[in-house]
Parts: sequence; structure tokens; C-alpha cells
Amino acid sequence: MRDFAAPDMMLAERLFGALDTQTRQGRGIVRDTYGRGEEAAHTLIRETGRSLGLDVDADAAGNTYVTLPGADSAAPCVMIGSHLDSVLQGGNYDGAAGVVAGIAVLAGMRQAGVVPSTDVKVMGIRAEEGQWFDTSYVGTFAAFGQLEPAVLDVRRIDTKRTMAEHMIELGIDPGPVRRGAAYLQPDRIRQFLELHIEQGPVLIGAGIPVGLVTGIRGCMRFRNAQCVGEYGHSGALPRLHRHDAVAATVDLIHALQQDWLRVEKEGQDLVFTTGEFYTDAAMHGPSKVSGETRFVLDFRSIADSTMEAMRLRALELAERVGRKFAVRFDLHEPLYSAPALLDPTMRASLGDIASEEGIAAMELASGAGHDASVFANLGIPTAMLFVRNANGSHNPDEAMDMADFAAATRILAAHVQRVTA
Amino acid sequence: MRDFAAPDMMLAERLFGALDTQTRQGRGIVRDTYGRGEEAAHTLIRETGRSLGLDVDADAAGNTYVTLPGADSAAPCVMIGSHLDSVLQGGNYDGAAGVVAGIAVLAGMRQAGVVPSTDVKVMGIRAEEGQWFDTSYVGTFAAFGQLEPAVLDVRRIDTKRTMAEHMIELGIDPGPVRRGAAYLQPDRIRQFLELHIEQGPVLIGAGIPVGLVTGIRGCMRFRNAQCVGEYGHSGALPRLHRHDAVAATVDLIHALQQDWLRVEKEGQDLVFTTGEFYTDAAMHGPSKVSGETRFVLDFRSIADSTMEAMRLRALELAERVGRKFAVRFDLHEPLYSAPALLDPTMRASLGDIASEEGIAAMELASGAGHDASVFANLGIPTAMLFVRNANGSHNPDEAMDMADFAAATRILAAHVQRVTA
Repeated sequence: MRDFAAPDMMLAERLFGALDTQTRQGRGIVRDTYGRGEEAAHTLIRETGRSLGLDVDADAAGNTYVTLPGADSAAPCVMIGSHLDSVLQGGNYDGAAGVVAGIAVLAGMRQAGVVPSTDVKVMGIRAEEGQWFDTSYVGTFAAFGQLEPAVLDVRRIDTKRTMAEHMIELGIDPGPVRRGAAYLQPDRIRQFLELHIEQGPVLIGAGIPVGLVTGIRGCMRFRNAQCVGEYGHSGALPRLHRHDAVAATVDLIHALQQDWLRVEKEGQDLVFTTGEFYTDAAMHGPSKVSGETRFVLDFRSIADSTMEAMRLRALELAERVGRKFAVRFDLHEPLYSAPALLDPTMRASLGDIASEEGIAAMELASGAGHDASVFANLGIPTAMLFVRNANGSHNPDEAMDMADFAAATRILAAHVQRVTA
Repeated sequence: MRDFAAPDMMLAERLFGALDTQTRQGRGIVRDTYGRGEEAAHTLIRETGRSLGLDVDADAAGNTYVTLPGADSAAPCVMIGSHLDSVLQGGNYDGAAGVVAGIAVLAGMRQAGVVPSTDVKVMGIRAEEGQWFDTSYVGTFAAFGQLEPAVLDVRRIDTKRTMAEHMIELGIDPGPVRRGAAYLQPDRIRQFLELHIEQGPVLIGAGIPVGLVTGIRGCMRFRNAQCVGEYGHSGALPRLHRHDAVAATVDLIHALQQDWLRVEKEGQDLVFTTGEFYTDAAMHGPSKVSGETRFVLDFRSIADSTMEAMRLRALELAERVGRKFAVRFDLHEPLYSAPALLDPTMRASLGDIASEEGIAAMELASGAGHDASVFANLGIPTAMLFVRNANGSHNPDEAMDMADFAAATRILAAHVQRVTA
């Protein structure tokens, strides 16, 4: 197939340039959630939409919608979306690439005079990065009227002001969000598509520019796990008299690492990480048996059953290792986010287009969470495209090649026009 | 035997009370090395010595000496000593008990008009606790003119000022210490005795008030061990792409714990401790693979050969585990202190006196290091008495029963008077 309007890549590059200029602080990007950086990105997308003659709207949570009206505006729309916020000192592409791609698709269609059968909407999403308010997918949940109201009262980690206060500063009344006003209805969205840089190294390793995402891993995380033992003299305390928190925690994590290898061998999808592990700097010492540790156990999988098995295993080990080392583990309640399976028919369509266009693409799972998982778990047919990216994400060094971005955006443009032909 | 002057226990209790009043901060004791707390203790001992009509002196490092002159002051002396500094938030007895016991012995002898055949000296030692300047036995080495001059330039962990600066603030000129001026000569000390609370639970467990120390464990300590990996996204980074510093460090410590069990089974003396273990709070995160850890590996044994074997084993594992996890371990140079064997003849004499006095005593090894080890390793006949103590040491909850202290001090008084009869 060649009969589709190409995305406007000149516009895309201009938008990336403007985002970089407006939201870089020092080495990295700062598009702070419900703050100046995120707001600047939304303003840019709104103004760009207007200048293209597209419909521009916002919902109660401040998410931005740019719409190319279809012949039948009453029919369920096709939506392209991603988030416009970033972590502190992040890169320019994590999130924004998906919005810029959507705008480039709409601009190409508009400039070619394509009138789709249904509305095609780009959603610039608020508040995806959990770093600022310790909560993810705020904008997406709020768009569907499903945000837990308590989230509005969470204080931002840097400013200590609540999310509601931050919204008011941007001229957004938090009242309707608190009352659960819904702007989107699941049955009014025919398909949702998100383009995002890959945050892992799989595409780089495989030498392939585009990924077709099979599913988004859920997360079972013991965020504030703790082991309480008893401080003592490292030279004077015989092994059997110890209540050694480090020794016990090492034993627990080592056992879980062995479990990970076993689960992997059985062919199940799992990653297991302890990103934080620390003794108490105010109490520990080089000649002390440690009396306390704090640590994180982070399990992620495409399969709920695997995460649940690891949760039970962690609790069982906490009991058993705790007894063995005469210490007490308190893992506290885990945080949970559901895995999401993406739509195989849409994925097949995207794969077919990639072949026709001569773009190398491969299937892979997403280890990171994405707004797309919320759409998928609401029953909306959902697909994700990954773009090859070096150096991971959530850091200033993320590096997406513009040619790879153009290839993925071409696939997106062709798919949207095929669906709305 | 009953023909010896009893130690002055009223004075001992007054001294413990004064030390507590002057150096308790909040819940615990702070007799900071070359700081206000340590200085207050030395002032108290000096003034007490003078008020008893004893000779009071100090050496270039600020160690305090209180002397009951003997009939032949030219003959080698008998010395009782321990340290007057404490860890941050320590207890009142660790160190000070040995000095208070010595003063109580001298006071008892003075009050009874006992003139010993040779000088009997009590040494209040500076800077034993390695917590402040990361170096132990500073006062003892300096007294013999053997302190490594570089130690004077080490900065205190809290104030960031050097040891030399701290000495000057107390009116002590660091110049002579730097030049290796010696106040003590090994051949001028006939015997050295140190009374100290037990820092482990052995006497409590055995229900015995007094311990006769057979030897003092040496220490091989990797104080600033480090593992450098690479930060990454915990969900997006597959296992084989990781450079996970926590996973690698857990694997290393777990292997060393297994080694400890094996060495123990072979009947060798060893304790192994990781008292500090931490990821970098400025960089780590619950959804990040960790890029760095810092930790301590502390090996202690009566046998040099066992410590050396563990040193080699740690280096070998650092290589092997580093390769396995694609990270780099840097254990840095270990700190080493030699184990010390104490004098069996002196120990036998102390044991005999305990029997005669009806005091239960048992032999045991010291897991903690002590100034006595420096005296012993200089060839001076050396003995240590442990006093039963609950809750370990280096914490505010150490708990020595005054009756146990009185029993051990009686043994000390009788021994000194027997030797100097």
C-alpha cells in the first residue's frame, strides 16, 4: 500500500525542537507534572493544533485533545495518545514522542485533504510520571472519571503543594475531577494507539527500529519492606546470638533471585529488582551487626499469576528466613498495577504495514507501565509501537534516531488511515 | 588470701555517676574522641588522682597517667589501663570501667597505706573507638611513639576537622606525636592489665560474672567496599542486560556467609559481618536497577591464617561475581589489626585469685579488639578481665551489674598487690 498521507516529519522535528528549548533545565528535561514544564508542552500542542485548523479541546483534568473531524463524528473515534510530562532531568522523547507522532499524522492527513470516516483524536495526557505525586496514569484515569479523589490531596514531592493546588495554579478547577466527571467513554473509542520510545535495550540489541508491543507488564511492588534485627558488636557476638538484619535480607533476596532463574527457565515472563537496599546511616557502623534494613522488592510480569506466585513466595520466605536469622521481616502491603494484554488484531495490522513499508519490526513485551494499559484494561482495543532508543529512559541521555521515529510514525499514519478509510 | 587492700567501690560508683552526668547526651553516652566528651572524662580522672594524692601526668597524645609510686620507682611498673572515649550514643561502661577499676584499686591501696614494690600506674587511654577517625588504638600507639603520622590528618567523621586540629583545640601540640616521641617503653612495663565489659553475650549466657580472656581476635576489614553497576529501568531491562549492583552484592555476601558456615564446621574461629550496606539515596529508586552499592566486609579471628584465607576468598569472589553480574567490585585495601594471645601465667594467677575469693570465672576469647592487644603484641605480659554485661556494647543499653564489677575489680586489686608485694 502507498495510498496514505505521509506524516508531517518537518513539523515533528520543529515540535521536538520547541519542547527541548522550552523545557530543558541544565542537562535534562523537566516537564513537571501539573507544573510549568508540563504546561508549556500542552500549550505548544494546543497552539499547534489550532494553527493546523484542527479542533482543540481539554477535559476537566487538563488533558489536551486535538481532533481531525471525521465524516461521521457520531461514530467511535480512533485515538492516538501519550503523556507530556517527564521525570526530573529526563529526556525529550519519553511520552512527548507519542503526542508529536499523533500531531504529525493529523497534520499529514489534513494537508493531504484526507477526511477520515470517524474522528481521529490526539490526546496529550497529564500526570503519567509517578515521580512527582507517587501516582501514575492520573490524567488517563481522570479522563474516564475514575481518578481516586484522594490523589488530588497528595503533595508533590518537591513543592509539597497538593495536586489540587497545582491544578488551581494552572487555572484548572479540581472540583469536577474530584466528583468523577468523565470526558471519555470506553465505548466511544474504537481503538487507542500509543507510540513510545523503548525504555529497555531490546530493539537496540536486535538492531530493529520498531517494536510491536504484545503486552504491558504489571507490577507487584513491596515498596517499603523492612527487616528488624538487633544491633550488636561485630567481633563479640557469636553467630547464633545474632539478629543480623543484613545477613537475613541478603538471604531473602538471594533466595528470590534463585526463584527468578527457575521461573525464567519455566518460560514465564518475570523481572525482579531490588532498587533500594540500605542500613540506617544514623545507627549502622563498620563494627556493628546491623539492626535494621529497608529495601524494595519489585516483581513485574505480563502474567498476574506469576506476580501473585512471587508475592506469596516473598511472604513465605520472609517467615522462614526471619525464623532462621531470628529477625522480623515486615514487607508491608504491596502496590499493585495490573498487566495489560494488547490487541492482537491491531498488532497484526501494524506488523503487516511494517512489512509492506519495508520497516523491520519485532514483537516484544513492555516492561515499563504506560497509559495504554489503562485503555486496554477498560476493554478498548489498544496497540503500542516502540521506537528504538539508546541509554534507557528517565535520564538526559535517552537517544532516539529521528529516522526510527519517522518509520514508526509512518506505520501509525498508515494504520489510522486504513482503519478510517 | 585476704591480705590485700580492697578497692574503693564507693569512689568507683561516684566516678561512674560523674561520667554519666557529664557525658550523657539524650539516651546515650558521647565521649567523642579528642572532643569535649573524652576530655571531660580525662579531666575527671586527673582531678580524682590529684585529690587522692597520687601522681598525675600526661603524654604527648594526651593519655592520662595516675601513679601510686612504688618503693623502687626505677623498676618496671605494673599498669592497669583502658580507654575513656566512647562511640556516639554508647554506654557508660565500655572503656571507662577499666580506668575506674584501676583508680579504685589505687585508692584502696593508698588509703590502706600499701606501698607497692614498684610503681602501679593507671592509664586513661585516648582514641580507642575507631568510629570517629576510622582508626583504633591511636592513644596506645602514640604512647609508644608508634602512631602512623598520617592518622593525625584524618578528618573526624562528624566535624570534618583533622585529628591534629582537634588536639590543638584541647591544648595538645600534635608535633611530638607526629615525630614519634615515646612516653612508654615496652621493657619498662612488667605487666599490663585491662578490665572491660564483655561486649558479647557469653558470660550472661553462662551465668558467670567474670571472664578470663585467652586472646583478642584480630580484624580484617574491607571498610569501603563498593560495587559499581549501571542504573536502569526495573521493568524494561531484561536480566541479561543488567548491571545490577544490589543483585551482585547480595550474591557476594551470600557466598561469604556460606564460607563462614564451612569454616565454623572446620572448627576455626571466625565471625563475619556486613554492618553497612547501602544504595545511593540520591540516585536509587523503587523502579530502578541499582547502579551502585557501598558495604563493609568485617572478618575477625584469633588466627591470622583464617583472616588471610577470607581476604583472598573475598577478592576471588569479587572477581567471579563481578563477571557473572557484569559489574565491577572495588573492595579497596583492607584495614588489618593483628590478633593477640594473652599471657597464660597472668591468666592462671587471676583464675587462682577468683577461686580463692569464691568468684565464678571462665576463660573466653575476646571478639572485640582492645588496647591490650597492642601491649601484648609489643611483648608485654598482658591479661584481660571481662565483666558480665547485658545488651552488648556500643549502645545506650549496655548493662553491667555493680556487684559483677566489684568482683572483677577485687580480683584485679589482689593480683596487683600480689605482684607488687
